[in-house]
Amino acid sequence: MIYADYNATTPLGEGARTWIAQAFELWGNPSSSHRQGRKAMELLNKSREAIAELVGVTPTDIVFTSGGSEANHLALMGKALEVGKGFRILTSQVEHSSVKDLLPLIQKLGGEVDYISVNGQGQLSLSELEAKLKLFNPHLVSLMTANNETGVVFPIPDIAELCQKNSALFHTDAVQGLGKLDSAFYRSAHLVSISAHKIYGPKGVGALIIKKGTSLVATHYGGAQEIKRRGGTENILGIAGFAGAAQELMTSDSQTISPFIRDYFESTLQKNLEGIWVQGLKEPRIPNTSNIRFQGIPSEVLLGALDLEGIAISAGSACSSGSISPSHVLLNMGLNENEAKECVRFSWGKTSTLQAVEEVAQKVIAHVSRIRARNSTKVISN
Amino acid sequence: MIYADYNATTPLGEGARTWIAQAFELWGNPSSSHRQGRKAMELLNKSREAIAELVGVTPTDIVFTSGGSEANHLALMGKALEVGKGFRILTSQVEHSSVKDLLPLIQKLGGEVDYISVNGQGQLSLSELEAKLKLFNPHLVSLMTANNETGVVFPIPDIAELCQKNSALFHTDAVQGLGKLDSAFYRSAHLVSISAHKIYGPKGVGALIIKKGTSLVATHYGGAQEIKRRGGTENILGIAGFAGAAQELMTSDSQTISPFIRDYFESTLQKNLEGIWVQGLKEPRIPNTSNIRFQGIPSEVLLGALDLEGIAISAGSACSSGSISPSHVLLNMGLNENEAKECVRFSWGKTSTLQAVEEVAQKVIAHVSRIRARNSTKVISN
Repeated sequence: MIYADYNATTPLGEGARTWIAQAFELWGNPSSSHRQGRKAMELLNKSREAIAELVGVTPTDIVFTSGGSEANHLALMGKALEVGKGFRILTSQVEHSSVKDLLPLIQKLGGEVDYISVNGQGQLSLSELEAKLKLFNPHLVSLMTANNETGVVFPIPDIAELCQKNSALFHTDAVQGLGKLDSAFYRSAHLVSISAHKIYGPKGVGALIIKKGTSLVATHYGGAQEIKRRGGTENILGIAGFAGAAQELMTSDSQTISPFIRDYFESTLQKNLEGIWVQGLKEPRIPNTSNIRFQGIPSEVLLGALDLEGIAISAGSACSSGSISPSHVLLNMGLNENEAKECVRFSWGKTSTLQAVEEVAQKVIAHVSRIRARNSTKVISN
Repeated sequence: MIYADYNATTPLGEGARTWIAQAFELWGNPSSSHRQGRKAMELLNKSREAIAELVGVTPTDIVFTSGGSEANHLALMGKALEVGKGFRILTSQVEHSSVKDLLPLIQKLGGEVDYISVNGQGQLSLSELEAKLKLFNPHLVSLMTANNETGVVFPIPDIAELCQKNSALFHTDAVQGLGKLDSAFYRSAHLVSISAHKIYGPKGVGALIIKKGTSLVATHYGGAQEIKRRGGTENILGIAGFAGAAQELMTSDSQTISPFIRDYFESTLQKNLEGIWVQGLKEPRIPNTSNIRFQGIPSEVLLGALDLEGIAISAGSACSSGSISPSHVLLNMGLNENEAKECVRFSWGKTSTLQAVEEVAQKVIAHVSRIRARNSTKVISN
C-alpha cells in the first residue's frame, strides 16, 4: 500500500494521537466556571498557544473552526455580512471550492465579485492585481497560498504588500501551505485559513487567523466562545489533536518538505514517457505536489489501475471527487475538458520514501504504456 | 468530586472512546475514491446509520455539523437565505443563544422575527402559537424541545401538528432532548438539531436532521459532502464518537433517564430550606434538570462554595458563563434581574448515584443556611 494523496488528507500522526488521548480525560465544557470547565479551558489555551507558535502569530489571533472550509467561509462571509450590500471581493478562478462555491451566495446578498486570471502555469500577474485593486477597489482580496490541485504558489508577500498599499483586506487560504512552506510566507495576510488534517492532525478542525484590528461578523452563534468570533462549544478533541500535530511538526527536523522526492518522481516519468506535462512546472510550487497530464489516458482509468495495485492518488481535489466535471483549476489554466480529464495529482508526505516513489513511478510508466498500447494512442512528443 | 452539570456537557463515554480509537486507523478522506477514502466513507456511513437509528430517521436525513449550534444555524440561516428578503421566523424568547443571537443577523438581511411568549413556568401557549401562525404566517417556526436552563419541555407533537396545518416549516432544537426523552417526541419536526456531547459523545460534532422534501441553502461550502447540504471534510473522529455514544445509548437499559434522582433532590431541598423555588416545577420537564432559585444567595456565591467542595454545577447555560448579565430565559419567565441571579442549575447524568445526589443536597442545604445566617436574609416562606 502506497499513499500518495497527502493533499487530500494525511494519516493521524503520533503527536495528534497522544494529545487526543489526553483530551479524553479533560471532557469539561471550557465555558463552565467549575473545575472540570477550567481544566478543559487550560487544554484549549495550551492548544491555541501551540498552533500560534507554529504559525508565528499571537494566540488571540486564532479562531478555531470546523476546518479550512469554515475558516474560508468565516473570512469571506464574515466580511460580506459586515460590509453589507456593495461588498466587493477580488479573488482568483482557481480557489478551493469552499471559496468558489460561496461566491454566488455573496452575490445573491448584494456583493460584487471580480477575478484575477491565471496563466497556463496557474500563476497570476501582480500587475493585473494592482490594476484591479485600483479599478475595482475591493474590500477583501482572497487568494490562496498554494493551489491544492497543482501545488502552484501565489506570491503572497507581494500580494500582501499590494493589498496594504491599496487599503484592501487580504485573506489567504493557506491550508496547503501549512507545514509545506515557511509560515513567514503567508502570515503577512490579515486573514489566514489553516486546517489540521493536512499536517497529520484530525479532520474537522481548523482555524482562521484574524490579525488584531481586523473585524468580521461572526458566522457561527451559540455563546461567547473564541472571543465572540465563533460560537458553539469547542471541539476539544479536535483542537487538541491539531495542537499535537503542530507540536510534532515543530519538534521534527524540518517544518517543510524537501522537493527532492517530487522532482525525482517527475524526472523519472519525463525520462520514460512522452506526452506528459507537469502543471505549473515553471512556477514556484509546494514541494510535495505533482499534477501531471498523461495524454490519452482518462484519469479514472489510471486511478483505478493504481488503486488495484494499492497506490492511492487522486484526480485533483478530494472535495470534488464526487463530481464528474473536469477541474475548474485546470480549465482556468487553459486546458480543454479532455485535457483536464487526463490529469492526476500525486502528493507526497511522511511515508513517501524514495523506494515508494520509485515504485509508483515504475507502476505509472507501466500502466500508461500498457493503456496507450491498447488504445494505440498517438502521442505528441513534448 | 461530584459532577452535576450534565446539561453543559457530559464525560466521554466508553462507546465514544472505542469508536474514536477505531477511527484513528481510518484516516482517509471520505471524498477520495481510493481504498483509504472508501474505508473512511464506510465508517461515515456506519456512523450515520447508528445515529439515524437512535433518532428513528432515515440515514440520508442526517447532515453532520460541528455541533448543535451549527445545526441551529443551518436550519435558520439556511431557510432565511433560501427565502431571501421578507423571510419570517417565529420563535420563543427562551431559545438557546445559537438561535437567539442569530436573529439580529436574519433581521439585518431583511428577515422578520416574531416571538411566542412563555409564562412564569417557562411554558408557551398553543393558542398563542396558533394565532401567530395565522397572523404572522411564518416560513419557519423554531421552538426548542427542552430548555437547557430550566429543563421545561415544549409540547413538540402539538406544535408540529399546528405547523403542519398552517404550512409552516418546523425546526426544533432537540439538543437537550436527545437521550432524555423518547425520540418520537421531537422527530415529527421537519428540522431537528442534535449534539453528541450531551450524550457522552465528543464536543464539536452534531447533526441537523433534514426530513426529505425540506430544502435549505447550504451555509457551509467546500465540496459535495453530506449530499451538498454541508461542505467541508467530515469530522470523522467526532462523527465516529457520536455514533459510539448513540450505540451505547441504544444498548443501555434505558434510553431515557428516570426523574427519580431529580425529584428526590428537589424534595430534599424543599423539606429543609425555605425561600427556594424550582423553575418550571408545574410543567413537563426533562428528567435530569433542576433550576432552583435560592432567595438571597447570589448564584456565584453558591457555585463557588460548591466548587471548593468538588461539586460542579452552573448558573445556567455554560455558553453564557462568560457573561455577567442574568439569564434571558429566566427574565422572560418574569423573574427580575436579582431573582434571576439567584438561580442555579443542577443537571444529573450517568454518575449521579443517589448517594452523590444526597451529598449535593446536604452541602447545598448547609451552604445556603450558612450564607443566609451570615447575611441575616429574611426568607419568604413558600
